[in-house]
Amino acid sequence: MKLMHWFFFGLVLAIVFIFSCSTKQETFHGNPAYDSLATKMYATALSSGQAYSMLTDLTTNVGARLSGSPGMEKAVVWAKTRMESLGFDKVWLEPVMVPHWVRGDVEELAVIGPEKKSLSIAALGGSRPTPKEGITAEVVEVQSFDELRALGEAARGKIIFFNRPMDKSLITPFEAYGGAVDQRGKGAVEAARAGGVAAIVRSMTMLHDDVPHTGAMRYNDSVPRVPAAAISLVGADFLSQLLAKNKKVTLNLKLSCDTLPDVETFNVIGEMTGTEKPNEVVVIGGHLDSWDKGKGAHDDGAGCVQSIEAIRLLMAMGIKPKRTIRAVLFANEENGARGAKAYAAKDRSGEKHVAAMESDGGGSTPKGFDVESDSLAFPKIARWAYLFDAIDADNIKKGGSGTDVEPLYKMGVPAIGLRVDPHRYFDYHHSDHDTIDKVNERELELGAAAMAILAYVLAQEGI
Amino acid sequence: MKLMHWFFFGLVLAIVFIFSCSTKQETFHGNPAYDSLATKMYATALSSGQAYSMLTDLTTNVGARLSGSPGMEKAVVWAKTRMESLGFDKVWLEPVMVPHWVRGDVEELAVIGPEKKSLSIAALGGSRPTPKEGITAEVVEVQSFDELRALGEAARGKIIFFNRPMDKSLITPFEAYGGAVDQRGKGAVEAARAGGVAAIVRSMTMLHDDVPHTGAMRYNDSVPRVPAAAISLVGADFLSQLLAKNKKVTLNLKLSCDTLPDVETFNVIGEMTGTEKPNEVVVIGGHLDSWDKGKGAHDDGAGCVQSIEAIRLLMAMGIKPKRTIRAVLFANEENGARGAKAYAAKDRSGEKHVAAMESDGGGSTPKGFDVESDSLAFPKIARWAYLFDAIDADNIKKGGSGTDVEPLYKMGVPAIGLRVDPHRYFDYHHSDHDTIDKVNERELELGAAAMAILAYVLAQEGI
Repeated sequence: MKLMHWFFFGLVLAIVFIFSCSTKQETFHGNPAYDSLATKMYATALSSGQAYSMLTDLTTNVGARLSGSPGMEKAVVWAKTRMESLGFDKVWLEPVMVPHWVRGDVEELAVIGPEKKSLSIAALGGSRPTPKEGITAEVVEVQSFDELRALGEAARGKIIFFNRPMDKSLITPFEAYGGAVDQRGKGAVEAARAGGVAAIVRSMTMLHDDVPHTGAMRYNDSVPRVPAAAISLVGADFLSQLLAKNKKVTLNLKLSCDTLPDVETFNVIGEMTGTEKPNEVVVIGGHLDSWDKGKGAHDDGAGCVQSIEAIRLLMAMGIKPKRTIRAVLFANEENGARGAKAYAAKDRSGEKHVAAMESDGGGSTPKGFDVESDSLAFPKIARWAYLFDAIDADNIKKGGSGTDVEPLYKMGVPAIGLRVDPHRYFDYHHSDHDTIDKVNERELELGAAAMAILAYVLAQEGI
Repeated sequence: MKLMHWFFFGLVLAIVFIFSCSTKQETFHGNPAYDSLATKMYATALSSGQAYSMLTDLTTNVGARLSGSPGMEKAVVWAKTRMESLGFDKVWLEPVMVPHWVRGDVEELAVIGPEKKSLSIAALGGSRPTPKEGITAEVVEVQSFDELRALGEAARGKIIFFNRPMDKSLITPFEAYGGAVDQRGKGAVEAARAGGVAAIVRSMTMLHDDVPHTGAMRYNDSVPRVPAAAISLVGADFLSQLLAKNKKVTLNLKLSCDTLPDVETFNVIGEMTGTEKPNEVVVIGGHLDSWDKGKGAHDDGAGCVQSIEAIRLLMAMGIKPKRTIRAVLFANEENGARGAKAYAAKDRSGEKHVAAMESDGGGSTPKGFDVESDSLAFPKIARWAYLFDAIDADNIKKGGSGTDVEPLYKMGVPAIGLRVDPHRYFDYHHSDHDTIDKVNERELELGAAAMAILAYVLAQEGI
């Protein structure tokens, strides 16, 4: 062999080797049966999916489902009955003690005196009530806790008005929410620490209307428990403008909410049992509780019916996974996440969780999945992205999964969140707007299909 | 040099060569300034975009804009004034003769006799009226033109009811629309050919309610011009079930619509003139006309305000493109596309069109672009996909661009359509539902930002 022959031999060998490597990586297609399964799944979900009709039933015949409320108890029965009537292999309840906060029966009021101009408000979940006659005090507006602290004595005896808006310029509304929600969660504590007598908080939304958005707040034993309420964006802007004009604005705040002793409710669980490895489990879920405002359609009736529907779709297509696929409808995500903690804490000896997936970003068009896992598991989940290309949802990224799968993630289980088009979510979130008419049937059903497909391939292939 | 040295020399050379090729392809990042431009554009559009406020103004203060109507004339003034007040470099009108179809003043009726049950209907655009007393005839239902032809004499003297639904199982509603819309476009001709006296057509929507969706239909000189109307899905299903029960169902159809002589209107055009190659033009556009039902918010007020806004955003950011970016608000897309044809037919000696982009799929979340071009131009457009990754809109595919840029495409200009989340579009399309409250501000503004970015890089780099 001549020198040049060796040269070309090496050249060809290198080319073949490199191309075979790169080709292998680019054309991973798992089992080709999954392609046709996905195609059939999308068509089936769009033409005869039942997530939307289930959600219509849940939001109209059950309605709002705040932890401890009769609505939540009805929802537990509704969900269990629904899974049983669909013929799930196993359906059961797991008890969990949850906070029992009630809004109270007296009309919530925030009235600017002496003009008697009323602002639309909603007590924050967990808030203490005001005295019957309400709290009447001067209002002071701040954009941050730092600004509040800098007020010093000027905050004493005042109603602290937290008015920092969500940052509209951020592409992801969830990021904007994350940047503003400290005011809702910790506003009452910070108000009390500054000597304030109550907290009112600009609603966590970018929709400029007169509807307040509630949500969870927390107290802290080191300071007095002062009442806290959300006010609408229209109200917040009105109040802010009034404060800019007048030196002194007085508000009378009346809330009749209260926290009663914890009550027992249930995580509702149903599964299709795996044929080969029944003790290896892929969890899919949403949370069954909601706030008392609206009907919990997007948050998170959507995730609940999608989890049930994902299993129903697999059953309807005659598919039997090797590992178990388990729908878990968690109790009490909104004000305690007790259901998620209870599910993860329960002794499940002999069981291994392969992955835990939730849908809690609303029922809009699926765009992909956010994955929390170690670096070994991530590519084993992300490699299935191609199955979601047909619906433009092949974007599998590392990112926050969700509150209800978080405790499992902390125990080492890869956690996955269905990511959906995010732009409308906070228009509805925790408010009277969160009703079935804000959900689009096709978008909701496609989300259920995406969950079914990913749950199925993980149940077949493991991680 | 030994044999093995030659071998390794070849190996290394091949590896270096191949990696340099593959790296080059994967990491194309154009001018890094475009990255920061895109980032800034999204933030600016989301925090201070004006597309939504423009669309609110257009849909409330101008309203519906059917070709030949006073609304369309008001819209021409509105658009020209808006571009002028924003300080576009050049603003002008180009005349175009358009069809002038009117719905008429008499209430449209479709009454099932003898029970007097009334169905919700809307005459199709272009339809002839019925006689004043209406047309009373037996109804015969078909799913296709083949089924109609097979009826033979049984169709004679009947009102032909075209009731083939859009195929819900298809992932893309536009494909489902394409598979059903022949009934609306050609139903009257086929009805007349079979001896029928009128056509009623199941609305082109998948939203199951009692709102009819209008749209264009065409006649053909070879057969009589029989009236044609859309009926709602609720009405279509009611009628179909009645026909399944009763052998004979009689309908009285009354339409007072008519086609008047063509009238003159205008394409409204405004541009930011290129600094280096002013005669090379990137067109961005939408259509200014709408149907008379609803307010033309998604179809296609959205595309119009996004085109104006794209230029306004570039101006607000102090950007001056090398080539001209021209917003064209086309007249008469809905029932004739005369504006698009007139724009393309006009002598523009000395000008060269680099690309033509339109937004006519509604104002929902942008997902990417559909490109019609030769195989050389496509990769030169698709290579900019990475600029849209931040908003999950980096999906640039070959596909149909749109009615208003089609005549330019036929002249060799690469044509581009903004692709948006499609699932809600036909809920609103051509109906009373197409109003501003169905448009989400953030989704609309992001579409304008995406158009601005792609128009700008094409204006800088050419194709």
